[in-house]
Amino acid sequence: MPSPREASSSLQEKMDEAIDGVNKAIARLLPETDLPEARLFDAMRYGTLNGGKRLRPFLAICSAKLFNVDLKRAKRIAAAIEFVHCYSLIHDDLPSMDNADLRRGKPSTHKAFDEATAILAGDALLALAFEVLSHPDTHEDPRVRCDLVQALALAAGGHGLCGGQMLDILGEKEEFDLGTISRLQRMKTGRLMTFACEAGAILGKAGEPQRKALCNYANDLGLAFQVTDDILDTEGQVIHLGKPTGKDDKAGKSTFVSTMGKEQAKARAEMLVQQAIRHLHIFDGGRADTLKELATYVLKRRA
Amino acid sequence: MPSPREASSSLQEKMDEAIDGVNKAIARLLPETDLPEARLFDAMRYGTLNGGKRLRPFLAICSAKLFNVDLKRAKRIAAAIEFVHCYSLIHDDLPSMDNADLRRGKPSTHKAFDEATAILAGDALLALAFEVLSHPDTHEDPRVRCDLVQALALAAGGHGLCGGQMLDILGEKEEFDLGTISRLQRMKTGRLMTFACEAGAILGKAGEPQRKALCNYANDLGLAFQVTDDILDTEGQVIHLGKPTGKDDKAGKSTFVSTMGKEQAKARAEMLVQQAIRHLHIFDGGRADTLKELATYVLKRRA
Repeated sequence: MPSPREASSSLQEKMDEAIDGVNKAIARLLPETDLPEARLFDAMRYGTLNGGKRLRPFLAICSAKLFNVDLKRAKRIAAAIEFVHCYSLIHDDLPSMDNADLRRGKPSTHKAFDEATAILAGDALLALAFEVLSHPDTHEDPRVRCDLVQALALAAGGHGLCGGQMLDILGEKEEFDLGTISRLQRMKTGRLMTFACEAGAILGKAGEPQRKALCNYANDLGLAFQVTDDILDTEGQVIHLGKPTGKDDKAGKSTFVSTMGKEQAKARAEMLVQQAIRHLHIFDGGRADTLKELATYVLKRRA
Repeated sequence: MPSPREASSSLQEKMDEAIDGVNKAIARLLPETDLPEARLFDAMRYGTLNGGKRLRPFLAICSAKLFNVDLKRAKRIAAAIEFVHCYSLIHDDLPSMDNADLRRGKPSTHKAFDEATAILAGDALLALAFEVLSHPDTHEDPRVRCDLVQALALAAGGHGLCGGQMLDILGEKEEFDLGTISRLQRMKTGRLMTFACEAGAILGKAGEPQRKALCNYANDLGLAFQVTDDILDTEGQVIHLGKPTGKDDKAGKSTFVSTMGKEQAKARAEMLVQQAIRHLHIFDGGRADTLKELATYVLKRRA
C-alpha cells in the first residue's frame, strides 16, 4: 500500500514541526478546565486537537517566515486560523449540513458529544479566533491586529466560508456550472487559505506586492487543493482520508470531477499549481522554496 | 389589557428613535443581494430585522452619548452588538437547543428557512460583528477598534454567551443552585449587555472609573433583566412576549423563580436595579438619567 504522504522528507519534517508547534499553541489557548461549563471546552479541544493536517497553519507559518516574523507570534495566528477551520468542520459535519459521522477517522464532534454542544463549540471557536488575533501578544501594533481581524472576518463570513457552505448546500438541489463551483470552492476553501498566507504578510508588515503575491499563490493553491479533493473523493481510500469517499457523488453535488471529468480535473490542478508557484517568483533566492514544494505536495497528496 | 410598554413617553421616544436608527444601520450593513448565496443573506436579514426590543443597542447608544460619541459610530457598534445577540437567538432556537418555533411572534429562522441555513446565518452574523468593529469607519484609532474586538470576543465566547448557553442546556438535566444560575445568566445575558455599555465607553475613550461604573451598571441590569424574564415566563402572556411562556418550567430548568420563589425574585430584581442605578452616580447632573430610567423600565416591563 502506498504511503498517504508524498512529501519529501525535508518538507515532511517542516510540516511535522509546524503541526507540533500549532498543536501546542492550541492546547495552551484552550486549556482543560473544571468550570461548570467544562463540557463546552472539552468539545472545543476535541474538535481542534484531533490530528488534522494543519495545512492552513503551515501556510501561515511559512508565509510569516518570509518576513522574519517571530515564530511564537506566527504560531498564535496559525492557531487562530485553525480554530476557524475546525469550527467550520464541526458545523459542516452536523446532521442538518453534511451529516458526517466521521472526521479524521474519529466520531465527529456532534457524535462524540451532541448536536447542541457541537454547535456551541463551533461558535466559541470562532469567537476565540478573534480574541487571539486582537490580543496584544499577537502584535504590539494595534493596526496590525485590526488588519488581521478585518481580513479574517471577511474570510469567515457571508462572503467567505459561510457563503461557500451555503452554496455547497444549495448545490445538492441544483446543478452548478464550472464558474459557480469555482466560486463555491474559492469561498469555502480558498478564502481561509488565502487569509493564512495573507496573515503572515500582515504580521510581517510586508509590502503590497508581496502580500498580493502570497494571496494569489494561496488562491490558486486552494483551488488546486479542492480539485484534488474531488479526485480523491472518487478514488481515495477511507483509510487515508479518515472519512467516507464518494460522498459528493451520492449527495448529487456538482464537483470539478463531475463537471470536467477526472483527466481534465487532473490537468487543471496541475496548471493551478504551476500558476501558484509562478506567483512566488517575487521572492528571490530560495526564500519561498517551502511554499513552492508545498504546492507540488498538494497535487500529489493521497489524503 | 395593559400595554406591554411601561416606559415613560420620553424614554419610549428615545427607545423608538434608537430602534429606528439601529434598524437602518443593520439594513445598510446587510443589504439585499442577488448573489448565488443570497439565501444566506436573506436569513441573516430575517433573523435581525424582526422587530426586536433592541435593548443592547439602546444601552450602547446611551453609553456612547455620555462621552459625546458621534451618533453614526454609536449606531455601527449598536448594530454589531445586535448581530451577536440575534446570532445567539437564532442558534438558541434550533431544535437541538431550545427547539423554539416562534421568536417575537414569528417563525424562528430555522422554521422560516431550514436548520442548515439558520446555523450558517448565525455564524455569518458573528463574523460580521467583528468585521464591523474592526473597520476604520468604527473609529480612526486602531487601538479603540482592537479594544472593541477583544471585549466582544470575550463576551461572545466560551466564557460569555456560549458558556452561558452550554450551562443553560446542562441545566435541563441537573438542578443548579442560585450561584450557578447567576453564573449562567451573567454569561448568557449579562456579558453582552455589559459589552454594550462598555463599548460606548471604549468608543468615547472614557476613563477607567467611568468604564467600570458602566460595566457594573450593566452587570446588575442584566441580572435584573433575567430575573424579570423568569417572572414573565411564569406569568406573561404569549401575545406580549411573542414566544411560548412556562417553557423553562416545562424543560425542568432551574430559574431564579423556581429557586427563590416569585416574591423573593421580585425583591431581588428591585434590589439589583437600585444597585445598578447607584453605579451611575459617578456621572454628574442628569447625564445618565436615561440609563437610570431604563433600569426602572426593565423592572416594570411586561414583554
